[in-house]
Amino acid sequence: MFKKILIANRGEIALRVIRTCREMGIKTVAVYSTADAESLHVRFADEAVCIGPAPSKDSYLKIPNIIAAAEITNADAIHPGYGFLSENSRFSKICEEHDIKFIGASAEQIDRMGDKATAKETMIEAGVPVVPGSEGLLGSLEDTKKLAKEVGYPVMLKATAGGGGKGMRAVWKEEDIEKAFESAKQEAAAAFGNDGMYMEKLIEEPRHIEIQIIGDQYGKACHLSERDCSIQRRHQKLTEETPSPFMTDELRDAMGEAAVKAAEYIKYEGAGTVEFLVDKHRNFYFMEMNTRIQVEHPITEQVIDYDLIREQILVAAGVPISGKNYTPKLHSIECRINAEDPYNDFRPSPGRITTLHAPGGHGVRLDTHVYGGYAIPPNYDSMIAKLITTAQTREEAINKMKRALDEFVIEGIKTTIPFHRQLMDDPDFIAGNYTTAFMESFKIKPIED
Amino acid sequence: MFKKILIANRGEIALRVIRTCREMGIKTVAVYSTADAESLHVRFADEAVCIGPAPSKDSYLKIPNIIAAAEITNADAIHPGYGFLSENSRFSKICEEHDIKFIGASAEQIDRMGDKATAKETMIEAGVPVVPGSEGLLGSLEDTKKLAKEVGYPVMLKATAGGGGKGMRAVWKEEDIEKAFESAKQEAAAAFGNDGMYMEKLIEEPRHIEIQIIGDQYGKACHLSERDCSIQRRHQKLTEETPSPFMTDELRDAMGEAAVKAAEYIKYEGAGTVEFLVDKHRNFYFMEMNTRIQVEHPITEQVIDYDLIREQILVAAGVPISGKNYTPKLHSIECRINAEDPYNDFRPSPGRITTLHAPGGHGVRLDTHVYGGYAIPPNYDSMIAKLITTAQTREEAINKMKRALDEFVIEGIKTTIPFHRQLMDDPDFIAGNYTTAFMESFKIKPIED
Repeated sequence: MFKKILIANRGEIALRVIRTCREMGIKTVAVYSTADAESLHVRFADEAVCIGPAPSKDSYLKIPNIIAAAEITNADAIHPGYGFLSENSRFSKICEEHDIKFIGASAEQIDRMGDKATAKETMIEAGVPVVPGSEGLLGSLEDTKKLAKEVGYPVMLKATAGGGGKGMRAVWKEEDIEKAFESAKQEAAAAFGNDGMYMEKLIEEPRHIEIQIIGDQYGKACHLSERDCSIQRRHQKLTEETPSPFMTDELRDAMGEAAVKAAEYIKYEGAGTVEFLVDKHRNFYFMEMNTRIQVEHPITEQVIDYDLIREQILVAAGVPISGKNYTPKLHSIECRINAEDPYNDFRPSPGRITTLHAPGGHGVRLDTHVYGGYAIPPNYDSMIAKLITTAQTREEAINKMKRALDEFVIEGIKTTIPFHRQLMDDPDFIAGNYTTAFMESFKIKPIED
Repeated sequence: MFKKILIANRGEIALRVIRTCREMGIKTVAVYSTADAESLHVRFADEAVCIGPAPSKDSYLKIPNIIAAAEITNADAIHPGYGFLSENSRFSKICEEHDIKFIGASAEQIDRMGDKATAKETMIEAGVPVVPGSEGLLGSLEDTKKLAKEVGYPVMLKATAGGGGKGMRAVWKEEDIEKAFESAKQEAAAAFGNDGMYMEKLIEEPRHIEIQIIGDQYGKACHLSERDCSIQRRHQKLTEETPSPFMTDELRDAMGEAAVKAAEYIKYEGAGTVEFLVDKHRNFYFMEMNTRIQVEHPITEQVIDYDLIREQILVAAGVPISGKNYTPKLHSIECRINAEDPYNDFRPSPGRITTLHAPGGHGVRLDTHVYGGYAIPPNYDSMIAKLITTAQTREEAINKMKRALDEFVIEGIKTTIPFHRQLMDDPDFIAGNYTTAFMESFKIKPIED
């Protein structure tokens, strides 16, 4: 087993990994930017190394600084968390070259799944259903038009290096495709330095349902059931739940089997997530695979009594998995609490938290790196806490979330707590009747005073 | 279902009941003493009624004030929590007379179990194993001496109205019995206004293991497995866990069956706990039955995914129980965090909490009514929080408790956190090798600075 793990991340996920390491008796090294010196992940690690100033490219993305921190502290493994370098194949490879175990996928696995067009080709080979569309990258505008006709409108044009909605266009009829194609390419080139595009059939009334998988070093994988992440705003997930209210036992078996097939085809090592779009007829299509732990992993942990970070570490140390697929016995919901103003277009609201009172009690879990007195730096993602409730039924989990949100006091900054509280009262949400378009029509009500 | 429940209690259990009521859509009424105006249970209830000044006899024990508060607010049920009036048969009866549902046992059930000597007689009738000793109250000193010879030394003399170790004496040989008998009687008379005594065989190397039961209004009961509460200091529980490290499947079945037999014999309604002493040969003996929710109920909830307060309310509303006995699938530990100085003979340490940082994350539950800035009044029990960790194995639950205790920051007062942290490192505790005498030899180590 590893003696010391460096966590190449910040915020709640860095603390999350440190907590499991402590429980496993593994020493931890935090790395931090100058803007994060006050963060709990720095306080709770056994050692902490400052790796540079706030812009991520000068610290959390700076591979030489992180490798140097690992070498100085004699860390024998690196956990990358999510975001930052977690899906960077070069980083995975450099770790390997320095005899530091990268707790995640190999460079080759990341490369096969990191690029969306390549991932799709791989999935077709593996026999996993994919959204009809281009095989590989799009060529000329004329080829693109021809393909769109074959696939059938509406179609989506997407940047192969994309993420967060950048370089993405929905096209509903042929006369719009030229403008969409050119502007998406330009946007992609500017954002990612890569203007490669691909095309997919646009799935109507889609749900974003993902399957958590875990694979070991011996080619075996299993699935840990699904998460419904359809409640998104501008492709950013806001609330997730498991099981999906849209799920059936048959669909779970079929999607789980497909996800395991995908993982085993590439001999995937570690925790990963296979994201699918599910249409209203319960057809499902591979969307992408995230070769890392996800923000929303706690809801899976809650319903299967399983510590996923622990499993990541065990798998990285060469322990074989049980190979058992899991079905949720309980219902769990996560609300991402962001330092954003839901009454002002979710604008970021960094600043100092003057008062913090955390909810607690039966069925409530809180993952956060902030505390009363903590100043949220403006440089990073605005998520400050994940509030998770778990109960025997979906209705009870929603009711528990309502009361936990009511108890949650954060003063000094704006947060998305009022949004989540209203979401939990929304009739369509309560009925489980939502798609990825849900937030387009959701309107937050004024605060009653 | 009830529309409004008054919670005739304070502190964490009042908040605990309010939380479940909110989740069930039931309105709540808090009652509070003038010393408790700042408590969270007052803040989170829908309504709050002040029922008098700080000494409990003038507020939390004052039945007319509580009944008046229920009538003024139109509460249709009262939850008594634990302590205070929770096992007061007169209060249960008065509630009934006022058409307010007492969420707990009937006056008759409380009377059959509240008096320890009567409880023992009832259990003998029900066929539940009891500790050999007196049948009913002891008579003269001569009769007591004679009986002690029959039962065999060592024996325990106990006040029938006792609790918290008062009016209790261990007697190891005949020449000591006279003095012990007289002094215990005097102590009992002073403390309880009742000098009735009974005798029991002293169980060597005893463990305190209790079975959680629940019974409905139709005479059906089931058990929800055990809790090991052997870690006690002066008969006050400090740390509890389930499953007991001493338990076997056979013993659980036998103890569970006996507890259900006890409950069904008296047609017990509600949640209750049958406490047993278990000797080193795994013989078990009925000790007493608590006809109320227990402080340590959360560990049971954690391992069976079951909200016990919710079940209490459902049963009180006439819902039948499933009747299924439960076996723990997980391991859960509770540490009672008291405002006491473990370095100064656990002396109470009331005062203002200047800083509070709660632990969180996977497998951590915190039940508390206090917060940063809260002033702990000196008038009540010193328990300020219950920290509960849950994991797949006992070892993992202990490791999780260690890291949660390490994260828990309470400044401004002394707490028992350092005691619990050392307990989690104690070789005998880790080995599960402890009896009710454990704390007699446990020595807290100085703080390293």
